[in-house]
Amino acid sequence: LIEAAGNRLSKPVGSTRSPPAFAVVDWGTTSFRLWLMDSVGTVLGERRSDEGMTKARNSGFQTILETHLCALGAPDDLPVMICGMAGARQGWIEARYIDTPAHLEEIIANAVTVPGLERDIRILPGLAQRDPANPDVIRGEETQLLGTPGLHRATGACCLPGTHSKWVSVEAGTIRRFSTFMTGELFAALSGATILRHALAQKDMSQENSPAFKRALISAHNEPTVFSHSLFTIRARSLLFESTPDDAAAFLSGLLIGMEMAGARDYVSGGSQPVTLIASGRLARLYALAFRTLAIAFTTIDAETAVRDGLRKAAGAIWNRTESETTI
Amino acid sequence: LIEAAGNRLSKPVGSTRSPPAFAVVDWGTTSFRLWLMDSVGTVLGERRSDEGMTKARNSGFQTILETHLCALGAPDDLPVMICGMAGARQGWIEARYIDTPAHLEEIIANAVTVPGLERDIRILPGLAQRDPANPDVIRGEETQLLGTPGLHRATGACCLPGTHSKWVSVEAGTIRRFSTFMTGELFAALSGATILRHALAQKDMSQENSPAFKRALISAHNEPTVFSHSLFTIRARSLLFESTPDDAAAFLSGLLIGMEMAGARDYVSGGSQPVTLIASGRLARLYALAFRTLAIAFTTIDAETAVRDGLRKAAGAIWNRTESETTI
Repeated sequence: LIEAAGNRLSKPVGSTRSPPAFAVVDWGTTSFRLWLMDSVGTVLGERRSDEGMTKARNSGFQTILETHLCALGAPDDLPVMICGMAGARQGWIEARYIDTPAHLEEIIANAVTVPGLERDIRILPGLAQRDPANPDVIRGEETQLLGTPGLHRATGACCLPGTHSKWVSVEAGTIRRFSTFMTGELFAALSGATILRHALAQKDMSQENSPAFKRALISAHNEPTVFSHSLFTIRARSLLFESTPDDAAAFLSGLLIGMEMAGARDYVSGGSQPVTLIASGRLARLYALAFRTLAIAFTTIDAETAVRDGLRKAAGAIWNRTESETTI
Repeated sequence: LIEAAGNRLSKPVGSTRSPPAFAVVDWGTTSFRLWLMDSVGTVLGERRSDEGMTKARNSGFQTILETHLCALGAPDDLPVMICGMAGARQGWIEARYIDTPAHLEEIIANAVTVPGLERDIRILPGLAQRDPANPDVIRGEETQLLGTPGLHRATGACCLPGTHSKWVSVEAGTIRRFSTFMTGELFAALSGATILRHALAQKDMSQENSPAFKRALISAHNEPTVFSHSLFTIRARSLLFESTPDDAAAFLSGLLIGMEMAGARDYVSGGSQPVTLIASGRLARLYALAFRTLAIAFTTIDAETAVRDGLRKAAGAIWNRTESETTI
């Protein structure tokens, strides 16, 4: 566990620090992040672990949550706002999808209370696009959108890269439509479970600033039709031209992100403003490089800040009436 | 082991049957098929097993081959012609790729002899396309092409579906160029190693005559750009519309084959004759349905007959001079 300074809150503190008002949790498939906040959203403490939904289904969602709250010395009656896979059907309590088009405020209005507990725990819902020809779902990223500044005024596209990259079209605070691209998961499956593993040698997706990345990106973006053939050229290049595992990984990253950007073309062209890239760390750098290479205008918002701010807005709106009016 | 009638050859037979002239072997990554033939190519005996290259690297190529020859009562000096992964760098003896463009006869001319053995054993080479912008390799399918009737006169495209589907452009017996599509392996990786496994529930690729197959096929063929998003709709459809695993598998098959056919479009349009589909069993039926659905003219050749005939031609050309002149 990585623990921030706030994990010493359990000791008496003789300072002017404000008391915790709520805790917020981003509970993904494989990760758990909790922040303790005061009434204006200042972070008082933080906990991170790999106890995502997959582990929590075995060890229990409540047990995991209470252990982390206890470690931060949180009061027994501190309310908790959660987003992510904890609200999936196979999670803790299902927070049913709300349908698109949906205003960002509807996410807050449809928070579900975990029943039968002393503590007030709410889980934010995901979004469903119930179009039989183009069905799609989001769970977790909607809270990043809620925490992204300016979206209640803007008309444009957001790109949230990851295992399942999401492209979202937002119009004055309303999520009109979205598309999921399996970019990150395709990288993992192709590099781990196909013949390409010989060429890649367990490299990850973050091979930046490589000519192979840019070449593959442009090629897949301009000619996505030959994708499943282009994949095999990675194997052939390794056999015939002895390309390195770094180059092979960069090429595969480029192909997959290029395919994603080709498929998201109408999101890019439909917006009057630069694409909002909501990402952190290496993925943010990789997608920024892709946008620059393809000459697509964009601005970047840190994904972790966004999800924390989205959770804070939801918590403030529900448990702190005065704050809600100023932040949504 | 599946053994044909010929596996009783080891017992004395008082018939007029001609003596074996050679054995031929299609030695793939995960499969081994051997046929005992007389000098005109009549099949006298057959052996099949799962002792492909992967297993043979552990138990030994020679041991496996001799065990099967012995079971058929083959003489110690019977020559053997092999194609497939036994000739890969990581196989028995490397039969180095010959470069495109290559005439079908060059495959025979470049057969490699396994050194240091009493028995005369030859391995046919694969083909390499050493184009840095579009590198590709074939190993095994070249022998199916060698055994496909009419290719020495024809100008057109061949489609050889499988784990790695091959599209090949042939001009009067010369292989001009080819492209590998990872269709079968993508199906396996996506249905086994990604979130789509929940929707597919271990179904295989042969879901024929399903509306979902045709719908996905046409959609991917017409709009291949959104491939990695279309994949995720399989998951979303299962969550939002409770599609069945059969439908999900049919949809994934359709998407992947549609992508392949979109990527192979210039092979189809470049030929003056129908596409030659070289395939067997369920894969042959699935691709035939795809061709009919997309209104692409085609004729079918059985893949197993083709590889056996290709091996027979090579064996006849090397060990049976009179036969070679009539069959190539």
